[in-house]
Amino acid sequence: MNDVKILLDEAEIPTQWYNVAADLPTPLPPPLGPDGQPIGPDALAPLFPQALIEQEVSTQRWIPIPEPVRDIYRQWRPAPMFRARQLEKALGTPARIYYKYEGVSPAGSHKPNTAVAQAYYNQREGCLRLTTETGAGQWGSSIALAGAMFGISVRVYMVRVSYQQKPFRRSMMETWGAEVFSSPTTHTQSGRDALARDPETPGSLGLAISEAVEDAASRADTHYALGSVLNHVVLHQTVIGLEAMAQFKKVNDFPDVVIGCCGGGSNFGGTAFPFLQEKAAGRAVRLVAVEPDSCPTLTRGRYAYDHGDTAKLTPLMPMYSLGHDFVPPGIHAGGLRYHGDSPLVSHLCHLGLVEAVAVPQLATFQAGVLFARSEGILPAPESNHAIRVAIDEALKCKESGESKAIFFTLSGHGHFDMAAYDRYFAGDLEDYAYPEEKIAASLASLRPIGPG
Amino acid sequence: MNDVKILLDEAEIPTQWYNVAADLPTPLPPPLGPDGQPIGPDALAPLFPQALIEQEVSTQRWIPIPEPVRDIYRQWRPAPMFRARQLEKALGTPARIYYKYEGVSPAGSHKPNTAVAQAYYNQREGCLRLTTETGAGQWGSSIALAGAMFGISVRVYMVRVSYQQKPFRRSMMETWGAEVFSSPTTHTQSGRDALARDPETPGSLGLAISEAVEDAASRADTHYALGSVLNHVVLHQTVIGLEAMAQFKKVNDFPDVVIGCCGGGSNFGGTAFPFLQEKAAGRAVRLVAVEPDSCPTLTRGRYAYDHGDTAKLTPLMPMYSLGHDFVPPGIHAGGLRYHGDSPLVSHLCHLGLVEAVAVPQLATFQAGVLFARSEGILPAPESNHAIRVAIDEALKCKESGESKAIFFTLSGHGHFDMAAYDRYFAGDLEDYAYPEEKIAASLASLRPIGPG
Repeated sequence: MNDVKILLDEAEIPTQWYNVAADLPTPLPPPLGPDGQPIGPDALAPLFPQALIEQEVSTQRWIPIPEPVRDIYRQWRPAPMFRARQLEKALGTPARIYYKYEGVSPAGSHKPNTAVAQAYYNQREGCLRLTTETGAGQWGSSIALAGAMFGISVRVYMVRVSYQQKPFRRSMMETWGAEVFSSPTTHTQSGRDALARDPETPGSLGLAISEAVEDAASRADTHYALGSVLNHVVLHQTVIGLEAMAQFKKVNDFPDVVIGCCGGGSNFGGTAFPFLQEKAAGRAVRLVAVEPDSCPTLTRGRYAYDHGDTAKLTPLMPMYSLGHDFVPPGIHAGGLRYHGDSPLVSHLCHLGLVEAVAVPQLATFQAGVLFARSEGILPAPESNHAIRVAIDEALKCKESGESKAIFFTLSGHGHFDMAAYDRYFAGDLEDYAYPEEKIAASLASLRPIGPG
Repeated sequence: MNDVKILLDEAEIPTQWYNVAADLPTPLPPPLGPDGQPIGPDALAPLFPQALIEQEVSTQRWIPIPEPVRDIYRQWRPAPMFRARQLEKALGTPARIYYKYEGVSPAGSHKPNTAVAQAYYNQREGCLRLTTETGAGQWGSSIALAGAMFGISVRVYMVRVSYQQKPFRRSMMETWGAEVFSSPTTHTQSGRDALARDPETPGSLGLAISEAVEDAASRADTHYALGSVLNHVVLHQTVIGLEAMAQFKKVNDFPDVVIGCCGGGSNFGGTAFPFLQEKAAGRAVRLVAVEPDSCPTLTRGRYAYDHGDTAKLTPLMPMYSLGHDFVPPGIHAGGLRYHGDSPLVSHLCHLGLVEAVAVPQLATFQAGVLFARSEGILPAPESNHAIRVAIDEALKCKESGESKAIFFTLSGHGHFDMAAYDRYFAGDLEDYAYPEEKIAASLASLRPIGPG
């Protein structure tokens, strides 16, 4: 039997991040200020350290990873890639299924790849307090972890529905020393306004971002950290795809399809973007972003200018969006409940270089359980979206007899999501697809991209 | 900076388990039947497959690991060893601290090392139904996982206090397809008797074992699986120590102290026994078993004959014991709440080749939090016992200026133990040391080993 794990040495941890902005067929539209005019890097200075702002606007192809960041990466990187032989057997497919497992990080997902970098740059520039938001808690725990490692105190605004569904993510953040609040809170104007509008709101990532940004903007000693969407965040996540490419080289294979679940876009972008270079070089590889039916940003949203948060505190960003007021239902893949998407992912999707597909909740859990019973690892609900599409692709191969190589990133484990599995087994989960008119209403406020 | 992780290739997964029974200075006293006479292997036939019974009594030094078992091991083995550089820095110690991380298995602990082997032998001999007990849930989830992989249906009796403290361990077992009950149940005579005696009992491992054994013994199609204590279980866990020795060779180092937490003894024995060969060859290495103050089997129990379970369904085994009626308080290290200990660990402790130390609960959580904030990984409460003693040894080095090599096994992660951390931070946990007279009373029923 051939090896199941495809491993790299610590020396093979990438020394540079890949910046896809260097290779875009057309440049990214600029973010806009409240006046509708393009904003420059300076506008971001109250919230982010200089180094991250430079990365946000850089078009340099390769950006060096600082040694202190690589030193922390060593704890769990290079992340293993697995050939899913047991899953292939269970499906009876001729496809070769591979997955990169990011759940090996102490926080259990890919998020520490950027959390560690963000904490490092903040500490280097003398900022020792960070605020952030979190949905499912994967990002919040990652920045809590990174804060513990760089001596930074961290305050997390956690979306209410996730705070209730995943109490132990909060405990985990507190064990690493962070402060955690259920959002909306009464600490911020954005939170108070939201509570006044609807005291029973489940919260949303957009709202929690407003709270964290408002908190950071109100204090000179504090910066804000975002776990997805922004260019520098996606940049840091390219260690996933870069390692995966080296791992494919090791087994002398190459994927026909690259799949990632997509909420804010950093897991998908970090996985897929490095493969774009090969695609540009003429190699046939499909890049597929998977999102939930109940928050169908790329598949039913519009490519337009929108705010990243509910209270409109962020610049207008060019992205697929469902509208910043869109409040998705409390599905269990909390990390995918975001109204917008990474401008880079959006742009590439708009250009047709990236495909998007939306899947219903029940089918994702069905896929996750099959995966757990064959491969062992118990996946996060977010990751189940990628697994669903990987299985669908493998079943297509079974029908056609083709032996394609299917690759996906298993972005994290589901150890803090067992209540969701309980509900799935109890028959308490349901699918939810938005009525067309509701989406149309939500899209009405978006500002078109381009002349006009 | 030198490497943090010490990795082996898949080809370096051991091909044989190490059987310490081959190297004992004096042989293990035999188990006794209800009549006080030594029992032979046949007595175990209703409960275990033949291959495991042979391993239980074997004195062959090396026992081959079947290829289908190694194939499953490949999913997470060889387990990484880490040099704890961040912890060393936090402590300011000249000691070199190493830990072997067994939390990388899908179930999150070392337990699958034996669960997979036990499921394999049962399936090979045609047994497709298993019963077992579980304390903290680490063993139960491991056998559930192994059952899923070999098509075996699994019923788990879970100690009531852990069932209540760790509901998501149950969900995890169910995701892998197992049936889980809170023990004591009304399904068995042992359970009904226990409930009649004390309807509010927190349960105990000894009682849950009675239930699982009774269930298995009552059905011809069912075997019983035990997660620790027995010789064949400890045997399977020697992959930990064997890999660790190869990893030390890789960095050209060798431990002065080998530390493991010790409940039933399989984690400790699996870690430490392979090092005994070096100790016998004259190399100075201390082997330290760490147990909780509140269940001080090796440190305050007696080396005697006792039953492995409360209802006296198991043979009398030669071991350190607190008496089979001993019900430890509901501490959070549920995996260490066992009245007895592995006969092999007990024997070697009695011979002075293994040291034992007991530590109080609060000090173990304090150690675990320090570990999480420096090394990142969030440890299980059981593992915190080993961390506590490793830190104490490192602090002794700081005082003496010695640079010793300290090695421990981090037996699992604490992702399902966050309620315990919550209680620790809230100040709700306490230390508990048994009054001497209570222990003396509990020891009174034990039957001496040796003539008389």
